[in-house]
Amino acid sequence: MTQQASAESKRIVVDAMGGDNAPDEVVAGTITAAREHGVRPILVGQAVRIRQILAAHDALGEIPIVNAEDVVAMDEGALAGLRRPRSPVAVACRLIRRGHASALVSAGSTGSVVATSRLRLRGQHGVARPAIAVVLPTRPRPTVLLDAGATADAKPEMLVQYAMLGTAYARIRLGVDAPRVGLLTIGEEAGKGNKLARRAHELLAGDVEGVDFAGNVEGSNLLAGKVDVVVTDGFTGNVALKTVEGTVGLLVAELREAVTAGPAARFGALLQRRRLRSLRDRLDSETYGGGVLLGLNGTVVIAHGASRAAGISAACVLARDLADSRIVEQIGDRIAATRPHRLPRREDSR
Amino acid sequence: MTQQASAESKRIVVDAMGGDNAPDEVVAGTITAAREHGVRPILVGQAVRIRQILAAHDALGEIPIVNAEDVVAMDEGALAGLRRPRSPVAVACRLIRRGHASALVSAGSTGSVVATSRLRLRGQHGVARPAIAVVLPTRPRPTVLLDAGATADAKPEMLVQYAMLGTAYARIRLGVDAPRVGLLTIGEEAGKGNKLARRAHELLAGDVEGVDFAGNVEGSNLLAGKVDVVVTDGFTGNVALKTVEGTVGLLVAELREAVTAGPAARFGALLQRRRLRSLRDRLDSETYGGGVLLGLNGTVVIAHGASRAAGISAACVLARDLADSRIVEQIGDRIAATRPHRLPRREDSR
Repeated sequence: MTQQASAESKRIVVDAMGGDNAPDEVVAGTITAAREHGVRPILVGQAVRIRQILAAHDALGEIPIVNAEDVVAMDEGALAGLRRPRSPVAVACRLIRRGHASALVSAGSTGSVVATSRLRLRGQHGVARPAIAVVLPTRPRPTVLLDAGATADAKPEMLVQYAMLGTAYARIRLGVDAPRVGLLTIGEEAGKGNKLARRAHELLAGDVEGVDFAGNVEGSNLLAGKVDVVVTDGFTGNVALKTVEGTVGLLVAELREAVTAGPAARFGALLQRRRLRSLRDRLDSETYGGGVLLGLNGTVVIAHGASRAAGISAACVLARDLADSRIVEQIGDRIAATRPHRLPRREDSR
Repeated sequence: MTQQASAESKRIVVDAMGGDNAPDEVVAGTITAAREHGVRPILVGQAVRIRQILAAHDALGEIPIVNAEDVVAMDEGALAGLRRPRSPVAVACRLIRRGHASALVSAGSTGSVVATSRLRLRGQHGVARPAIAVVLPTRPRPTVLLDAGATADAKPEMLVQYAMLGTAYARIRLGVDAPRVGLLTIGEEAGKGNKLARRAHELLAGDVEGVDFAGNVEGSNLLAGKVDVVVTDGFTGNVALKTVEGTVGLLVAELREAVTAGPAARFGALLQRRRLRSLRDRLDSETYGGGVLLGLNGTVVIAHGASRAAGISAACVLARDLADSRIVEQIGDRIAATRPHRLPRREDSR
């Protein structure tokens, strides 16, 4: 890597090879983040290809490149990257551990990015498992949902930690002073839900330092913006998130059909096109910059696999903002301040 | 009850007191089902109030009434009804067990209806746990989702039985000859998901008599209509179903806002009003008649708690159609035909 990058600390490493539109759109988005938003990125991946794309954008020399030839394909599965120390994500994690960068952006397959960065960045002291936090486009205020899929089988104590991670994240990302935390389950009353949710409710309803627990949230209220943070296990969270995406996709398609059929309706649609476009954009997951893997020794932003340049740029800006806010240290302080008997034993992340 | 009712068998019992709009809308919907759709109902509940409402509709004497004074309030919780043999649902179940009726319709609280009917109708021989099946408004064909919330903590073997229940239901309700069954989880590949989903995948991928297993379905494809039946545990299923409802609600509200703001857009909205209304109606859960509790010795249709007369009428028609199709017997035959080692031991339903 260049001298410039190693001399400074708040660099963002971007996995140039991850995602459906890599490396072209990823490199283009990284250039946008650098030129328009003052992000200081490092591109990791096949150096020859990255250099070609930078040249096409007249950006050769603007962004340092670290070579990592051993690209993990999107369909290789979560564990493929683990045995590959020269994969872009593995190399990026090493840059973070050595202090050359403070955050990683990847649009690669979620399972692979989670597995590799868990192994190579390690969990923060006191955090049993990392969680993926995503921001849902609720109104009037957005809601942070976690875990959106990092850990499929969770223990009740992990959900308590997710409440802490989510509280720190909502403070930084949403600017909410005292975030209210809800538990995703299947009834409003305390006794509702499966065993995991019932036990997590008991723990959260106890006195958890720094967590303002607001009770249960049902799926129907997931988008109602009633709380700032919703915690759940990674299986349920991923199903819920993907279900929101699928439902939005279906409705936007239906809507397009409804507003373009018939000449009178077509005229109406013309008048409304701008409004509908802004509605769709707000709901488009790409504009939300992807999920953030919390609880590791370094910030990892997982952009949507289908991200184009705009999504990558947004993810870079998010990574920079989180790093500047020292989110890893904030979470560490919060976990350390918690009474020890509330914490499950830290599991080895390998 | 009247002589007429006890002499015949395919009566539908309606819980007149269940739901947010009971008894007025429930009785009104029952009258519609009888007059316009040829359903032969029995109303169970506070006889004096039911008689008043029937009189207001000029329907006194058209529908037999069975008195059940001990009404369980919507907020009393799932177990309140268990100790109450004179609650409307308990009385309705007794009518079914004695052969006076073959199906029950209730818009009461789901937990309470499930608990009471499980206790009083008992599970079909060989069925470990009942499941709630709902029909999702996917295109081009609808999809049956189960379990939508009857059993929060499921075992992998139960999901295999849900595949059988769902197959029978899709045949009758959707008219699909050989329904394709998917497993709701968080990745397309076999090894993805939590422990429950991974084990259920193994079992379903084996040779399950009469079940055409099509593999995993992600939340994003839940509404894509790729399979006819989607099985999952009651916790995940309920979260997914409620998340669909919440997302649809948010988008319809957004849409209304988008199409009514500004004079030009208002004009467009006027032109499209009819189209938008039909879109909303198709997505409105009420038009789908509610969920069906499968696996008991009698058919139980659980209408949405907010159902108005139209929803109750649709639920009555559904209950009649299912009873006429002898769904309980069909499921019994299917379970009996399954190789015994695939079945978990039947648990006592109390």
